[in-house]
Amino acid sequence: MTERGLFITFEGVDGCGKSTQMRRLASALRAHGHTVVETVEPGGTPIGAQIRAILLDPANAALGPRAELLLYFAARAQNVDEILEPAIARGEIVLSDRWTDSTLAYQGWGRQLGEDVVQSLDAIACRGRRPDLTLWVDVDVDLALARAGARNSAEANTANRMDSQQRDFYLRVADAYRALAEREPVRVRRVDGSGSLDAVFQAVWSTFQTWRARHVR
Amino acid sequence: MTERGLFITFEGVDGCGKSTQMRRLASALRAHGHTVVETVEPGGTPIGAQIRAILLDPANAALGPRAELLLYFAARAQNVDEILEPAIARGEIVLSDRWTDSTLAYQGWGRQLGEDVVQSLDAIACRGRRPDLTLWVDVDVDLALARAGARNSAEANTANRMDSQQRDFYLRVADAYRALAEREPVRVRRVDGSGSLDAVFQAVWSTFQTWRARHVR
Repeated sequence: MTERGLFITFEGVDGCGKSTQMRRLASALRAHGHTVVETVEPGGTPIGAQIRAILLDPANAALGPRAELLLYFAARAQNVDEILEPAIARGEIVLSDRWTDSTLAYQGWGRQLGEDVVQSLDAIACRGRRPDLTLWVDVDVDLALARAGARNSAEANTANRMDSQQRDFYLRVADAYRALAEREPVRVRRVDGSGSLDAVFQAVWSTFQTWRARHVR
Repeated sequence: MTERGLFITFEGVDGCGKSTQMRRLASALRAHGHTVVETVEPGGTPIGAQIRAILLDPANAALGPRAELLLYFAARAQNVDEILEPAIARGEIVLSDRWTDSTLAYQGWGRQLGEDVVQSLDAIACRGRRPDLTLWVDVDVDLALARAGARNSAEANTANRMDSQQRDFYLRVADAYRALAEREPVRVRRVDGSGSLDAVFQAVWSTFQTWRARHVR
């Protein structure tokens, strides 16, 4: 039923609930007859999963900030070629759990590498392809960290480098998402992530419907 | 004895003999009292070795050209932070088997991704650090391919993606090295790699000595 492909990304700090909400949006879109491809960055392709393993291995504590950034974009470039562009060309809806806004927020702002380098790498890796719609699931940073912490204690083997970062880092990341939403109000839509799963999904669904009615065709 | 650090790279098509010549130069420099660090790209650091494994795994035939390029520069950025800059700061001589000229020649020209994208990534990954001297070991492409082929049949498990490339590809790579040497005659010095190991090393050593007498201090 989809007449043109759509690329929709989910963003937010770790523990904000975006992955759960993305799965629910995928189900709802499929129930409405759309063909939906779900992906994740980094790690959405077999090669991307190998890159993700390098990024998350606690033994790789020596990983430098520029090497980390280039690895994120290597995974993304592979996703663009292998998953995203083919699905868009088939007129499907691609949902991605994180994309370049994450790199802007985590590496550009959080690690203070700056936006310019991230945008330069995006231009190379993504060849101009940008999300049509970005759903930013906004929750209080302390709530998100508590959720992410609980999940990681429950699955001890998921402890990773990122979890050792400080609260200040996450506050910078949250600031970055806020700035992106202010700068690109058509593309980046804030969804209040503080309610129940059902309440957040209501907001996701109505945000998507409103956006689509205004901006698709 | 070294008063300032030096960064010297070895370049050329696969099978040109550069790795052997680099080891000999390292020995000769150590015999003259210098502290020498030998590295290789990609794979000169533990993280770089993990990246190299992704690049060379024949199971990764789906690896796209931009993802490949970003992986090469991720490995290089890690080398800059972990090996190259600390050694230069200590006043040591760093020898690297391949560097960005390889990426220019193989990906920029060989895979025809263009120079601009390679130079943009170099600026991000290497932060302005460029080789002081590059020794380009120049041999006939067919001779080099025969040598590389013999080495790879002797060590069957080293068969990799690059070996499946075509002769035309290697001719473009050789053209690129020639163009780089013409464009940057002070930095990039051609060494005739067609003679015996001893004869080639004589040329390497005298090229290095001549360059150093003119351009260091």
